[in-house]
Amino acid sequence: MARYIASAVAAFAKRMGFTLGPEAFADAWRAQYQPSMERVRSGVRPFVSLDALHRENLEPVLREQGVDPADGPHRYLDELGNAWHSLPPWPDSVEGILRIKRDFIVGPLSNGNTGLLVDMAKGAGLAWDVVLGSDISRAYKPSPMAYLTPAHFLGLEPGEVMLVAAHNADLAAARQTGLATAYIPRPAELGPNQHRNLAPTADWDLLAESITDLADRLAPAPS
Amino acid sequence: MARYIASAVAAFAKRMGFTLGPEAFADAWRAQYQPSMERVRSGVRPFVSLDALHRENLEPVLREQGVDPADGPHRYLDELGNAWHSLPPWPDSVEGILRIKRDFIVGPLSNGNTGLLVDMAKGAGLAWDVVLGSDISRAYKPSPMAYLTPAHFLGLEPGEVMLVAAHNADLAAARQTGLATAYIPRPAELGPNQHRNLAPTADWDLLAESITDLADRLAPAPS
Repeated sequence: MARYIASAVAAFAKRMGFTLGPEAFADAWRAQYQPSMERVRSGVRPFVSLDALHRENLEPVLREQGVDPADGPHRYLDELGNAWHSLPPWPDSVEGILRIKRDFIVGPLSNGNTGLLVDMAKGAGLAWDVVLGSDISRAYKPSPMAYLTPAHFLGLEPGEVMLVAAHNADLAAARQTGLATAYIPRPAELGPNQHRNLAPTADWDLLAESITDLADRLAPAPS
Repeated sequence: MARYIASAVAAFAKRMGFTLGPEAFADAWRAQYQPSMERVRSGVRPFVSLDALHRENLEPVLREQGVDPADGPHRYLDELGNAWHSLPPWPDSVEGILRIKRDFIVGPLSNGNTGLLVDMAKGAGLAWDVVLGSDISRAYKPSPMAYLTPAHFLGLEPGEVMLVAAHNADLAAARQTGLATAYIPRPAELGPNQHRNLAPTADWDLLAESITDLADRLAPAPS
């Protein structure tokens, strides 16, 4: 993810004629992610979509780099803001989701909004059965309603839903609302210097090495 | 559709030990569909899901047939109420949707709730990209928000969305909200005595014979 966003920043900088360190810029942009959602979670501002937050968050980061966001065409900024719609998939996810969906309803449980997640799925070939973004729950994880609302729309009890995640804090919040939990490691998610979420920190219901490994573990025993 | 629901009614009657005319019962049940939604559309009652309406609507129909709904196990009634989750697909829909989704985002625009539509898609093999039921819009067609809300959640302008339908009134309401329109005939949808929606009644943007025919008409010209 970090590398993809940095390459989108590099393309943006080139178009704009700016000199930017793409990795540092992507890191600074990503650093705005949690604080901007926290203003929604804490009730300081009404719900706004992640697309809108990503776009807003570009502006202070550009200013920190000495660039006035108003200097370039609006369109270029909007397109960079939407770079998250085109994130590449983890190599195991495409096949793993196809296998899990033979027996289960599969969907993302993300802070992304529905349009972002549908675009990402189309680009990446993720064959979700259902896509209910945070703009439908109007809640950002780890707020309880972010976990409970998708279960509600599927007519399921929380205990009939399993969150699969690489983030221990996400799983802890899901467990608090009654969801089942599965951990898979993504040790390179944030690049080579990642130091969190390298291993499970609690007794999650399932541990798997990848989404395809999870498909093996979830598959019904042959009859 | 009519035949499938009648067979679910026949199975229910057998389990309950009732004598019911399954076709007439299914017709009477279906006849409650529009009036029950109209109470929501007109604001006489707050939004309730189509699953809840289907289940409620069983009760007066049973009583009309001289059956007390409280006589049988609740579970059998709930299961009959959920028969709509298992409707079989039109034969052309499975392949047609797979072909259209190569180039477009495809989803149902139905009065069904999300859980109903996801279950139906899983059973029928309908490979939707996104499923946003009426419980997400909290509006029943032909209310304008039933058409506009899914477009909003996809980040699309109404004119970027096309409704494909076999019902002229549905297309007329969609056009009023700015959606593009395509008509396909389903002359046997309501059984052999269907007399409405046998042909287009306005200049819809596209006419097709089936979903596969629509896929041909929507496919980009070879380059």
